[in-house]
Amino acid sequence: MKLKFTKMHGAGNDFVVIDAIHQHVDFTPAQWQRLGDRRFGVGADQMLVVEKSQAEGVDFRYRIYNADGGEVEQCGNGARAFVKFVTDKGLTSKRAIRVETMSGIIEPKLEDDGRITVAMGAPVLAPAAVPFDASNLDSRAMGEDTLWPLDVQGKQVWISVVSMGNPHAVQVVEDSEAAPVLAEGPLIEHHPRFPRRVNAGFMQIVDRHSIKLRVFERGAGETLACGTGACAAVVAGIRRGLLDSPVAVQTHGGELSIAWAGGQQAVMMTGPAVSVFEGEIEIAAAG
Amino acid sequence: MKLKFTKMHGAGNDFVVIDAIHQHVDFTPAQWQRLGDRRFGVGADQMLVVEKSQAEGVDFRYRIYNADGGEVEQCGNGARAFVKFVTDKGLTSKRAIRVETMSGIIEPKLEDDGRITVAMGAPVLAPAAVPFDASNLDSRAMGEDTLWPLDVQGKQVWISVVSMGNPHAVQVVEDSEAAPVLAEGPLIEHHPRFPRRVNAGFMQIVDRHSIKLRVFERGAGETLACGTGACAAVVAGIRRGLLDSPVAVQTHGGELSIAWAGGQQAVMMTGPAVSVFEGEIEIAAAG
Repeated sequence: MKLKFTKMHGAGNDFVVIDAIHQHVDFTPAQWQRLGDRRFGVGADQMLVVEKSQAEGVDFRYRIYNADGGEVEQCGNGARAFVKFVTDKGLTSKRAIRVETMSGIIEPKLEDDGRITVAMGAPVLAPAAVPFDASNLDSRAMGEDTLWPLDVQGKQVWISVVSMGNPHAVQVVEDSEAAPVLAEGPLIEHHPRFPRRVNAGFMQIVDRHSIKLRVFERGAGETLACGTGACAAVVAGIRRGLLDSPVAVQTHGGELSIAWAGGQQAVMMTGPAVSVFEGEIEIAAAG
Repeated sequence: MKLKFTKMHGAGNDFVVIDAIHQHVDFTPAQWQRLGDRRFGVGADQMLVVEKSQAEGVDFRYRIYNADGGEVEQCGNGARAFVKFVTDKGLTSKRAIRVETMSGIIEPKLEDDGRITVAMGAPVLAPAAVPFDASNLDSRAMGEDTLWPLDVQGKQVWISVVSMGNPHAVQVVEDSEAAPVLAEGPLIEHHPRFPRRVNAGFMQIVDRHSIKLRVFERGAGETLACGTGACAAVVAGIRRGLLDSPVAVQTHGGELSIAWAGGQQAVMMTGPAVSVFEGEIEIAAAG
């Protein structure tokens, strides 16, 4: 069968986006894998499939498949690509779009400047919930935040620990470009105090409304832009008293804007989504 | 401007192929770079641009651009993609197609089974021409071939040296999957006896007409399929008396068939080319 798709990216995180309202889409993991392969298929971090929702008052449903063929939970970059896609394709004229995802109903919003805002949930700060093993550590208070000393090959690094649904260890550095992201990222990711491993963020404070950020992602290495990593860094920076909401986050993949009113409020992430090209691929029958 | 393209691959080496006969194509290196980017553009190892030739009796001309924006010489995988493209698009009905490339006129040929054969030139075997510094080494004869002892971190590896326009060091291994391609490939690539570095081939003899091959490519690491590496390995195997032409070469990217009549005859490479998808991209003006 012939499948039409749009190749998109959100701050460098890329997607094959598929209209499953006007096309029949029912692929095996092996077919998703092939589609996600950058040489033998279209290639992307993830495939995003847009369907109609059966739920009352909900406009759409989407599913996200990894390049390894498995279905995964929603991510902020995917939600932005979704909004750009249904808007560009004329599938809706709404600005706030209710959509069912694997992790519940969300309502991303198209801004006047064409960027898209997604609520990323409230940060979780209790070490045990991140999870981070804080036993027998002498923490240090900074503003409302608690800094923890992490031993990284004999060097002491002061980190904030934040969960945005996934665990983050955030440190402030003088210069994010010169920071030892590739050398120390893997050591922090696998540090025994993080039982489920951790995303390691290296944040440079530019001014009270602007940071530069690099993130060494759990299981992925350094990535162009990590949405939850941007949220975690800004939460840590605001709690340390170094930043005021909203904060512009410069990453290698592009700029994200993060707003947070504190406490149990959701972190709001605003960023771009870009359509790169339109394509059509012949999908071989499942074998 | 809108640009139509076809995404193709030949044994895993992938191309964005562009018809520049019916479209105006004149891009800056930065635009080629963008097009070749796997997240912000279409993404491919190379872009192949098909034009009409001005030369008498020549059907086409093609140019190849690397993902870094620079123009490069022809490669066997690109020539196969070219033949598949002009055939599928109805741009020619010939089976042997004369085409002008940066490295001269070639005449790839469409076989009855849909595979494509390309003459890859004659192998160059003189060590100094590869180039390989053979001074003060005790070589060993095997069949018509000369094996050279290469010191790889204290271990002695017996290699054949062959140039197919680029330098190759070929060794025979018991089991190509178990061979230390990633560990020793970089050491061979940068061995001081190869002043222009070298592609390191690890060849497993399956039978007299079949090998398995992995190649650690100069400047690229292990790749899915190296056309010149397959030629070099088969030349070495035939000269050692281990193989008879033609030889099926199994690589991680697919199968190539290599024929060589010996001496100053050209090595003939036959392999597949696959169209993966059709696309259309908006190219931003050069900035």
